[in-house]
Amino acid sequence: MRDADAPFVRVTTGTDQAALRRAHLGLVLRSLRDEGGRSRAQLAADLGLTRAVASGLVGELEARGLVCPGARQRGAVGRPGTTVELDAGLVCGLGAEVNVDHVSALAVDLGGDVVAERRVGLATRRLTPDEVLDELAAILRDTLAELTVGQGRHVAGVTVGVAGLVDAAHEVVTLAPNLGWRDLPVAQGLRDRLTSAPAPLSVDNEANLAASAEIDPADPDRSDMLVVFGEVGVGGGVVADGRLRRGRHGFAGEFGHMIVDPQGRPCACGRVGCWETVVGLRALLEAATDPDDPVRDPALTLEDRLAGLAERARRGDTRTLAALHEIGSWLGTGAAVLVNALDPGVVVLGGYFAALGQWLRPAVEEQLAAGVLASRLGETAVVVSTLGPTAAVRGAALASLEHVFLDPTAVPRRAETLNGAAR
Amino acid sequence: MRDADAPFVRVTTGTDQAALRRAHLGLVLRSLRDEGGRSRAQLAADLGLTRAVASGLVGELEARGLVCPGARQRGAVGRPGTTVELDAGLVCGLGAEVNVDHVSALAVDLGGDVVAERRVGLATRRLTPDEVLDELAAILRDTLAELTVGQGRHVAGVTVGVAGLVDAAHEVVTLAPNLGWRDLPVAQGLRDRLTSAPAPLSVDNEANLAASAEIDPADPDRSDMLVVFGEVGVGGGVVADGRLRRGRHGFAGEFGHMIVDPQGRPCACGRVGCWETVVGLRALLEAATDPDDPVRDPALTLEDRLAGLAERARRGDTRTLAALHEIGSWLGTGAAVLVNALDPGVVVLGGYFAALGQWLRPAVEEQLAAGVLASRLGETAVVVSTLGPTAAVRGAALASLEHVFLDPTAVPRRAETLNGAAR
Repeated sequence: MRDADAPFVRVTTGTDQAALRRAHLGLVLRSLRDEGGRSRAQLAADLGLTRAVASGLVGELEARGLVCPGARQRGAVGRPGTTVELDAGLVCGLGAEVNVDHVSALAVDLGGDVVAERRVGLATRRLTPDEVLDELAAILRDTLAELTVGQGRHVAGVTVGVAGLVDAAHEVVTLAPNLGWRDLPVAQGLRDRLTSAPAPLSVDNEANLAASAEIDPADPDRSDMLVVFGEVGVGGGVVADGRLRRGRHGFAGEFGHMIVDPQGRPCACGRVGCWETVVGLRALLEAATDPDDPVRDPALTLEDRLAGLAERARRGDTRTLAALHEIGSWLGTGAAVLVNALDPGVVVLGGYFAALGQWLRPAVEEQLAAGVLASRLGETAVVVSTLGPTAAVRGAALASLEHVFLDPTAVPRRAETLNGAAR
Repeated sequence: MRDADAPFVRVTTGTDQAALRRAHLGLVLRSLRDEGGRSRAQLAADLGLTRAVASGLVGELEARGLVCPGARQRGAVGRPGTTVELDAGLVCGLGAEVNVDHVSALAVDLGGDVVAERRVGLATRRLTPDEVLDELAAILRDTLAELTVGQGRHVAGVTVGVAGLVDAAHEVVTLAPNLGWRDLPVAQGLRDRLTSAPAPLSVDNEANLAASAEIDPADPDRSDMLVVFGEVGVGGGVVADGRLRRGRHGFAGEFGHMIVDPQGRPCACGRVGCWETVVGLRALLEAATDPDDPVRDPALTLEDRLAGLAERARRGDTRTLAALHEIGSWLGTGAAVLVNALDPGVVVLGGYFAALGQWLRPAVEEQLAAGVLASRLGETAVVVSTLGPTAAVRGAALASLEHVFLDPTAVPRRAETLNGAAR
């Protein structure tokens, strides 16, 4: 979740000095993450701050364990230790995911490296919401203990990704057709179960989180990007000018319920011909397999099913290849609609679309070439996500870290921590 | 074109002092426009600047004729003349439009009021591009003379709206199916014809300009907005987080070429079933009238045709009402696709959709209620544009003014102007 709008300091009516200082602290931290360690003088020049202000900010970040003296600058002849760099180790962000066949947790440190990962297979649809939240709380409790007691880290926040509509306050899953959930207060349910919830805890749409994990400020083609994420349901995210755009009520990216085939199949949402009905996992399984096909065995994980289909495609199995071409064509038909509207630099295929991307992509490209008005003028590349099945939970962990970049003072000064520990 | 991202001062690597000062000058100017006149001290506090810096900025804007001493603050007992306010009168932005049946020009002053307007009916499709540019140059020449010689104003820029794809450099119309233009260097063509082009001159997509004219920073529902603009062609704009989003290559908003009816009619673009084929003006005329209907008379202006149809609808003419319901349903079907993807607070119906909006809107609302997954959770309102047929050219004029808000030093100091005049 590297957010292109974040390095802006908004000068607004009534901005108070403390808010401005928090924004500046976040700006320094983000700059050290995105552009690497350097001297205080260089940092000040890069950010348009005076050297005294920059030094003060660096000092405060150091007291909170977020930056540290850097390695001696290569080739520099000055004093050692004049550079500063991100101290990635102390703080981490925790992500979690509730999916149709598993719950999982994953933590990343301030530099984005994975420092903890857990996953439990679970037929979530057959359990009550309370049972699912019990399982999720258990996995989060274990991971939190590992991170804090085991690794001595500070957890900046917990973000839970769910395949469904989440309210704007990031508290309640209002509708998750594929989990059978409606108006479920997930955030409060987890707070009740985690007696010492140490950090901000929020809920977010899984596909939006997976989309945010694809943002790369170093790649201009990804500043405007469409991420299409396929599982049983289909969703994704719209990135415009470097930032995930959530819409007025937070429901942007519900691509799965665009109607593309009005004379087609009924959808789990109650409508007919949603994109999900022609490109979701069920459509693939129906096109590629018979009902008694071993790939449909509900005991198999999603990864195993997809590996089975990929193996058949690799062997050149005619039915499998025809099914992938059909799904790819529908994927391209819907993507073309969105590309006409949004003109992204890339369309990223995520989730199961990525696992089978090499067979889906040619048909998607064909449909984009045919269906996009400006296709010969500004090329939109079709890219297969490399984040694998952990894209959403990784996006959730990165989202949790944003709390630190927005307000580094949320991390206690180390003296405060020591005092706390001594009590 | 009140641009929500504009009041941000980006602190970037290598920002130089002059660029920062230009950004601060623009910030002060924008704040005075959007939030009204006030004292230098209040302005400084509102913008988080020191009073000395704010006074310096105000002084420079005053020297350039952009701000002036304000009316004495109501109820204040201090010295008179301590407030400053926007001096809207000196500077104006000029917009122009090339449409299938006319070319036009319109200028607005710094406060957004219209100060000049011209329009010439022209069957642009039957003329060569050179002939159209000749007509456009003539109307621009007259309007420029009126603004500068007649009214003594400074023209900040000229923006020409064209119903077609425009390259990212805002110079060339690469494809305009309804004008029959391809790769036409419109900006250079006009510069060649206007011997003393006094200002930045650029070309932009007409529907994008119309969309930007709908942005209203005071209305949070318009921070995420979909503007759908109907004429012979159909286009529009995507506003996310307060700003028109243009996509990677500048082609966002080409809604007209979303395929919504794959078994339907051929489109001018060469594809089948584009949204334009079912909601464009031709579809309406075909559904509502016979070929020999007087409303189809090519000698009529678009406004006259629409007035004729509105009159029939008002009288309760069955065929007209059925046609409007059919077009409204298709309009809603396409809008629902976009609302699922973008979750706007409002969908604005512009262009001919606005002229007949009262009859189209109910069917659009029905389709949104039926086709949007989150429709019962976060309501997207359907709103009829009140900007009338000048939305695009007005958006063009506002776009021209942006040059001043981005860099007020583009307006010469008044002393410089006087020296220039004395030479």
